[in-house]
Amino acid sequence: MRSELIRKSVQQMTGYVPGEQPQGQTIIKLNTNENPYPPSPRVVEALHQLDPDVFRKYPNPVADDLRSRIAELHGCSVENVFVGNGSDEALALCTRAFVENDGNIGYFEPSYSLYPILADIRDVRKSPVDLDETFGWVTPPVDLCPLFFLTNPNAPTSMRFSRSDVESFCRSFRGVVLIDEAYVDFADEHCMDFALEYENVLVLRTLSKSFSLAGVRVGYVVGAVTLIAAMMKLKDSYNLDCIAQDLALVALNDMDYMRSNTKRIIASREKLTADLSDVGFEVCGSQTNFLWTKPPAVISASDLFVKLRDCGILVRYFPGPKTGHYIRITIGTEKEVAVLLDAVQHIVKDGIA
Amino acid sequence: MRSELIRKSVQQMTGYVPGEQPQGQTIIKLNTNENPYPPSPRVVEALHQLDPDVFRKYPNPVADDLRSRIAELHGCSVENVFVGNGSDEALALCTRAFVENDGNIGYFEPSYSLYPILADIRDVRKSPVDLDETFGWVTPPVDLCPLFFLTNPNAPTSMRFSRSDVESFCRSFRGVVLIDEAYVDFADEHCMDFALEYENVLVLRTLSKSFSLAGVRVGYVVGAVTLIAAMMKLKDSYNLDCIAQDLALVALNDMDYMRSNTKRIIASREKLTADLSDVGFEVCGSQTNFLWTKPPAVISASDLFVKLRDCGILVRYFPGPKTGHYIRITIGTEKEVAVLLDAVQHIVKDGIA
Repeated sequence: MRSELIRKSVQQMTGYVPGEQPQGQTIIKLNTNENPYPPSPRVVEALHQLDPDVFRKYPNPVADDLRSRIAELHGCSVENVFVGNGSDEALALCTRAFVENDGNIGYFEPSYSLYPILADIRDVRKSPVDLDETFGWVTPPVDLCPLFFLTNPNAPTSMRFSRSDVESFCRSFRGVVLIDEAYVDFADEHCMDFALEYENVLVLRTLSKSFSLAGVRVGYVVGAVTLIAAMMKLKDSYNLDCIAQDLALVALNDMDYMRSNTKRIIASREKLTADLSDVGFEVCGSQTNFLWTKPPAVISASDLFVKLRDCGILVRYFPGPKTGHYIRITIGTEKEVAVLLDAVQHIVKDGIA
Repeated sequence: MRSELIRKSVQQMTGYVPGEQPQGQTIIKLNTNENPYPPSPRVVEALHQLDPDVFRKYPNPVADDLRSRIAELHGCSVENVFVGNGSDEALALCTRAFVENDGNIGYFEPSYSLYPILADIRDVRKSPVDLDETFGWVTPPVDLCPLFFLTNPNAPTSMRFSRSDVESFCRSFRGVVLIDEAYVDFADEHCMDFALEYENVLVLRTLSKSFSLAGVRVGYVVGAVTLIAAMMKLKDSYNLDCIAQDLALVALNDMDYMRSNTKRIIASREKLTADLSDVGFEVCGSQTNFLWTKPPAVISASDLFVKLRDCGILVRYFPGPKTGHYIRITIGTEKEVAVLLDAVQHIVKDGIA
């Protein structure tokens, strides 16, 4: 083993551990915030109509058609749009485009658990900012860091920060603010306009959640031309394959399907919020496709996580002084949500008995 | 324009410029070393049989099935295999896994024009090593750099370095040697065994050329577990989408198709080599799917490039004191090669007249 060949920071770090993807078909998977319903039927049609001769050619390196459609959706120019191999690529590129080697990266705590890993990968310092006791907004210092990742609505807490808090932060902050709107199609407002108004703001969207395309890996960023151009310089030459470009375009041309799909998930979310509250859970007001919830005193979050797993239901548990009292439950199909509720009711009843 | 938000090295650099991808159907495209024939028919079948329900789920983050097949092909363990979103991702990861911020990256000159760009992206020094006057082997100093990119067969020169030269270099070199075997399926020998024998050697393969899957973006690296593990830590969480994983696996299960396809291209290459020599071209002995050739004295390489373009035939021209006397011609279909030869013959005749 010649570990001296490996860069020192890489030797020391651990990689990101994604939520489990069990192979068994009987598992109810409510742990990775995937959409329980398939993508638009037009995506499937498009897949079957793909001309396989395009496979042998390199894809369009800058995804012109897809970026045009995104520009049209948000009323901006193609030069304001970056498209990535999932949001992950866009986030990683930001750490390389906007942060010097002696710099640091800011983010809220708790928030998306990938952010500190991205700082480790980039080998720069981490500057987490603690949210308040109820996971509410705290304004980060204006000169905290050259890059701040702001998930809104936030994960794993499911709650949205207000537009006014976000806007006054963006206006005064000296570095780049990336607003990660992965879950925004499940929320009642968004901050896309800030990306076009403020030269230091980027807004990130993904097709993984509301468009049911997590497997196809497409995310995009909207923002000032200067910032987008920097990301374009650093990306892999052909970062998005021809199939992903094609299917993403088709999905973004069927907004009605996406909206009716998210509406259905929001209805399930509201029902589960009420039902869990009835059983004594404290449920945060979710603006996402998942719930962040604290079980009643008879059972700890970690025990509930294990017991649900024993019932074949996977949810997500984040150990830690703040997050360890909660579990995160992805909104599944109506049937999956009913099975979950039934299991939870039994577990809580057993706890009381 | 707030360019102070951008990292200094990024402000200064220029990105990679891929070969042109013209939209017109009448263009004969012999400029980006794509395979002129479609991928295995089984790939197309697999595409049509894809279950769209997989789209909504995150793909396997570490591409287990695909890596198992690659391990089987090369007689190694899954832990010896990294799979990337094209070779590009693998190359970029190497620059981050094996090179410190004050380090440097070595490569031959001329070689793949992406390597110096990757050094710029990583913001480290470049250490090019000039090949000899006939583009032949020169041994780089043993302590030149922590990472040396070695394309074999080389591009754009089309020639193969001998296994013995490569092996003695790998054995004595102190850093990591990445042998980029993008074109090896068109060659008469390879160096894959060095990746499993020497702890500082990685071998990179791509499905873009011999498997006709440039549009699908799949490349892989074989090497020591320590090196592969470092790359795995740094990659995007879900770097390879579910469709690419699936189609690549199918392609790698139909090696007969790939072999008969490459045989056909090699036959065209040998014929074109002879035919161009007859017209007075100096043609390097190619071990790839392209020719590196110097036109006869009556026409300069740059003029030939322009004149071919006027005839609707795109080839590649690399300006520069060493490369500027040559053009690079991708081997197309038999028909495309015949059209090219005809055009070249006319252009040369006009030059003499």
